[in-house]
Amino acid sequence: MERRKKQLVKRIGIFDSGAGGLTVLKELKASISGVKYYYLGDTARLPYGTKSSETIIRYTKQNAAFLIGKKIDVLIVACNTASAYAIPELRKFAADIPVTGVIHPGAKRAAKMTENGKIGIIGTRATISSGKYQKELKELDPDFRVFTNPAPLLVPLVEEGMVTGEVTEKLISMYLEPLLRKRIDTLILGCTHYPLLKQTIHEMYPGIMLVDSAEPIRDILLAGYEFPSGNGKTEIYVTDYPEGFGLLSHRFLEGNFDKIEHIDLQKLWKASNGTKIKKTK
Amino acid sequence: MERRKKQLVKRIGIFDSGAGGLTVLKELKASISGVKYYYLGDTARLPYGTKSSETIIRYTKQNAAFLIGKKIDVLIVACNTASAYAIPELRKFAADIPVTGVIHPGAKRAAKMTENGKIGIIGTRATISSGKYQKELKELDPDFRVFTNPAPLLVPLVEEGMVTGEVTEKLISMYLEPLLRKRIDTLILGCTHYPLLKQTIHEMYPGIMLVDSAEPIRDILLAGYEFPSGNGKTEIYVTDYPEGFGLLSHRFLEGNFDKIEHIDLQKLWKASNGTKIKKTK
Repeated sequence: MERRKKQLVKRIGIFDSGAGGLTVLKELKASISGVKYYYLGDTARLPYGTKSSETIIRYTKQNAAFLIGKKIDVLIVACNTASAYAIPELRKFAADIPVTGVIHPGAKRAAKMTENGKIGIIGTRATISSGKYQKELKELDPDFRVFTNPAPLLVPLVEEGMVTGEVTEKLISMYLEPLLRKRIDTLILGCTHYPLLKQTIHEMYPGIMLVDSAEPIRDILLAGYEFPSGNGKTEIYVTDYPEGFGLLSHRFLEGNFDKIEHIDLQKLWKASNGTKIKKTK
Repeated sequence: MERRKKQLVKRIGIFDSGAGGLTVLKELKASISGVKYYYLGDTARLPYGTKSSETIIRYTKQNAAFLIGKKIDVLIVACNTASAYAIPELRKFAADIPVTGVIHPGAKRAAKMTENGKIGIIGTRATISSGKYQKELKELDPDFRVFTNPAPLLVPLVEEGMVTGEVTEKLISMYLEPLLRKRIDTLILGCTHYPLLKQTIHEMYPGIMLVDSAEPIRDILLAGYEFPSGNGKTEIYVTDYPEGFGLLSHRFLEGNFDKIEHIDLQKLWKASNGTKIKKTK
């Protein structure tokens, strides 16, 4: 049997509404080190999770256009909210560049992990009400029982660095108790900020299996593509000035990047007439 | 002595990053009913309190341009963060239209209320680090002792409608205890979302005098201008689609408005080449 040669991926683009997607970047860098990473955090317009689908799609296309201008080979949408609303539009927009969101890989991983078929999902209000995780899980197994709860306050909590402590535990139990009463054995952390709460959640509820999307995305990439060896660089771009982001990116990524730069996405988008964004300075 | 005739104000424009400024609109409508109100909530780009000053000023000018296009006579910046960073730029931009922010009136009111001269301020990170409240208070009386604490999580808490309950009280005490240890007798609620927590804060700390900016702004308007009698209309504009905002505006304003409409501020701004925004459809 002849094995089809895998595509060589030299540049990976990742975007998120803010710093949350750095949890995905970190996981990827640990396993796939020879690639050049371009990370875009749309910090000037975050959070996406409380905005309408029209607004989310518009912002998302601008983010994609910027990264496509960097000649990426694969585009990863690290934002759950953007993944829930914009993947079909992005696939059309990105043309021949493969687009991977976080929802499909996360759902697949949860489906594999659950033993009793009862799966809980927490996410932003927009992600939960999109019904995308629920739909993916039901397609994998119509017998799954899926329970959801939007957990919007966990995002600012993580942005504030409050990943442990009394208030954090109170909020976590407020959001998780209704799901635990349904006897879920697996919980999808449906927002890229939540993995920073993994340790706290695990200590509070050691019996629950926690799913974040970083690992399954890494596995998809490793299974589908070839990568150069060596040590690639990492460039980080933000739409708001990076002072605050610097702090957050250290919290998420432990300062492991080569460049952080501010861009005016609106101006670049305008100049490009809504196609690929060519120049980044 | 001849009294100077006061200017007749028929239209008042108010903007905020989101729904918080509706607390100001509500207070004004109760006392000044004959005016036509235009309220703009920049919901597509909120929150401002975590963004850089450059970004805040840029967004703020676009908001002002839209309201000036409505032929307003007075512009009220109901957002503390925008008031902290953008008032001088806005005064230049708005030319002959008087611009009132929330910080100067709030500081003046606190200065009048305090008995022991120890004043506390809570606000967004951006408002507190601007130092504007602190500066205004020191100018009013250099002997004032001013203590501040950014309270960023109170904004999403109010947006979520969690204005009472255990988590809310825990967060409030987390933010206020350091100020109370300094023996403040007056607390400036330096964010338009916080007045919705007034009742809870008052019950927790009945000895502390609470200052929000809505009342002093009303007093400034009543002292400085004439208004038509009767019942004026209220139009509300948002930059993101109003489903979620509808809920919030009911929470803040009890549904008391004539129209709520979505606008694409970025497109209008572009079409107007950065001057006054003429058309709103």
